[in-house]
Amino acid sequence: MSGGPGGISMDELQLAARNHGMPLEALRYDVTPVGLHYLLIHFDIPAADDDSWRLELDGQVDRPLVLRMDDLRRRPRVTAPVTLECAGNGRARMDPRPVSQPWLEEAVGTAEWTGTPLRPLLEEAGIGEGAVEVLFAGADRGLQAELEHDYERSLPLAEAMRPEVMLAWGINGQPLPPQHGYPLRLVVPGWYGMTSVKWLRRISVLTEPFDGYQQTGTYLLHTSEDDPGTPVTRIQPRSLLLPPGIPVFESRERLCAPGHHLLTGRAWSGLAPVARVEVSVDGGASWQPAQLEPQPSPWAWAGWSLPWDATPGSYELCCRATDAAGNTQPLDPPWNTGGYANNAVQRVKVTVRP
Amino acid sequence: MSGGPGGISMDELQLAARNHGMPLEALRYDVTPVGLHYLLIHFDIPAADDDSWRLELDGQVDRPLVLRMDDLRRRPRVTAPVTLECAGNGRARMDPRPVSQPWLEEAVGTAEWTGTPLRPLLEEAGIGEGAVEVLFAGADRGLQAELEHDYERSLPLAEAMRPEVMLAWGINGQPLPPQHGYPLRLVVPGWYGMTSVKWLRRISVLTEPFDGYQQTGTYLLHTSEDDPGTPVTRIQPRSLLLPPGIPVFESRERLCAPGHHLLTGRAWSGLAPVARVEVSVDGGASWQPAQLEPQPSPWAWAGWSLPWDATPGSYELCCRATDAAGNTQPLDPPWNTGGYANNAVQRVKVTVRP
Repeated sequence: MSGGPGGISMDELQLAARNHGMPLEALRYDVTPVGLHYLLIHFDIPAADDDSWRLELDGQVDRPLVLRMDDLRRRPRVTAPVTLECAGNGRARMDPRPVSQPWLEEAVGTAEWTGTPLRPLLEEAGIGEGAVEVLFAGADRGLQAELEHDYERSLPLAEAMRPEVMLAWGINGQPLPPQHGYPLRLVVPGWYGMTSVKWLRRISVLTEPFDGYQQTGTYLLHTSEDDPGTPVTRIQPRSLLLPPGIPVFESRERLCAPGHHLLTGRAWSGLAPVARVEVSVDGGASWQPAQLEPQPSPWAWAGWSLPWDATPGSYELCCRATDAAGNTQPLDPPWNTGGYANNAVQRVKVTVRP
Repeated sequence: MSGGPGGISMDELQLAARNHGMPLEALRYDVTPVGLHYLLIHFDIPAADDDSWRLELDGQVDRPLVLRMDDLRRRPRVTAPVTLECAGNGRARMDPRPVSQPWLEEAVGTAEWTGTPLRPLLEEAGIGEGAVEVLFAGADRGLQAELEHDYERSLPLAEAMRPEVMLAWGINGQPLPPQHGYPLRLVVPGWYGMTSVKWLRRISVLTEPFDGYQQTGTYLLHTSEDDPGTPVTRIQPRSLLLPPGIPVFESRERLCAPGHHLLTGRAWSGLAPVARVEVSVDGGASWQPAQLEPQPSPWAWAGWSLPWDATPGSYELCCRATDAAGNTQPLDPPWNTGGYANNAVQRVKVTVRP
């Protein structure tokens, strides 16, 4: 379903009023403060209580487990910075616009997640013969495409066994707030955010691929409903720049003083380390290489900067990340039915005043 | 300026993607967790540092002051629950729709603010002869209506001297996060949120009424641009109900099982204590009184509840608060040019399935 040419519908606005992107000036923070990290709540935030929460681990395992939060917190603890991005980021820039949460380009954030690695837990339960996938079930429930279901997503077994996949109960040194999955969530570095199931209450080892709605009915890249499509998985490379100067309230366009500016931003890719960032001040007609900072981990964004001597005039600032595998950002949005993985370059209109 | 009939514009969407309402299921919390409280950032969140922050207190005072954050934290400390609501809440429900941040009805939240009362600080500085207003200046700057300015708002002297007005550095037991005004903000209980200036860097005692843009060019109730209008001040009574059952992703409409439900919600007014809440399951054709809980303070919302024996069918749930001064909520949005103070009753569509 595509949006009409006249603008965002009230249904889309209801989603945009609940969920939110990261205000772009928050690109100044290595670690995004709670409340500024992007947020996509699929159904409702469920009521949850740390004391009574149980995580079940079942399916094709030798020893099914039921774990309390205290059991989990006694396990080996890891803290890691991870950049998460919504698979629908950029959707509202597509034409025609697929109808769902209407993101522009701010559906991203980097948090310091604290939890316990998943792999040792799966090994303790004992993965049985014929296991192919691991299913993660959240406590949020609703209807989508007229199907009632809990929010559930699976990972291929090899992806679930990656050492950096964790069950997290903390963010930025605090307990998870309700909107980020309190008391427990999955964090899958490198994958779009729909994979990192919040309010996690069950993990099931499967001998057949999961075919629930959130796995096979949506989060697919296809250009028509007849095309079976390919699943949305890893985060495509993207960079964002911190809009310089001051904003115009109505348009969010920018006004700058002439002279020296240090353009800064962040870049990330779930496919490979970030290899380079280029910046354009003329809407992508010409590019200059930015200074790239080291990534704190392969799964967290890198800072970048480029000095800009601004002279009076009108500019369209863009930035473009390329990863070590050669993946880069297109100038125009790559269209698909669901509006996923649009990593087209950001465009920031700036007027430098005399 | 009004929005076209076709839907929300890209300019409005840019505001909606940055700012966000409180997801309505967060009505379950007496105190809204950080990240779920509504947020309206007028320009950009400024970079700020607790150590170097200075609050200037000047104007018509005997002893101008410059205070560090540590100076403020050594002063008498208060913590109080306060419900804040955006003056533009409900704007997107108006027809024609005034163009600005397109709120539906979720632009509200209740936090436990910690800070120091303003009045003793003004008394220490010594209010000079002829003082009429107190001006509060934030560190955020931008253009609106083509005028470049810092975000500044004033209060009549008597309002600024109310004992519950505070300078806050904490929310819900934590330091303010950047988006709520770190390191210091004003909190004016009972007034719409535009009054509670964030990133507070200057307080000036004035002998003439402030006529800056945010005071006299906007936040006015008028039905034409020729009408000088009246200023938006106190929060009109409003109530919201926690949508029962489970949501439909696309429409946010609700599905419920038949049988016993306890409808719950919150109600508040900045004009007087909440006196009663009524609930309708038939779109406002008939009303039943809800059970009202005590307000934790006159400036924080009250919980309410009403049992509902739901039988299969379609319902439109509404709630209506009335305060002790007799102010109540209209069934239809009260229209004005800027889209302010729309406290029309919420309408939640619910299908009870057999």
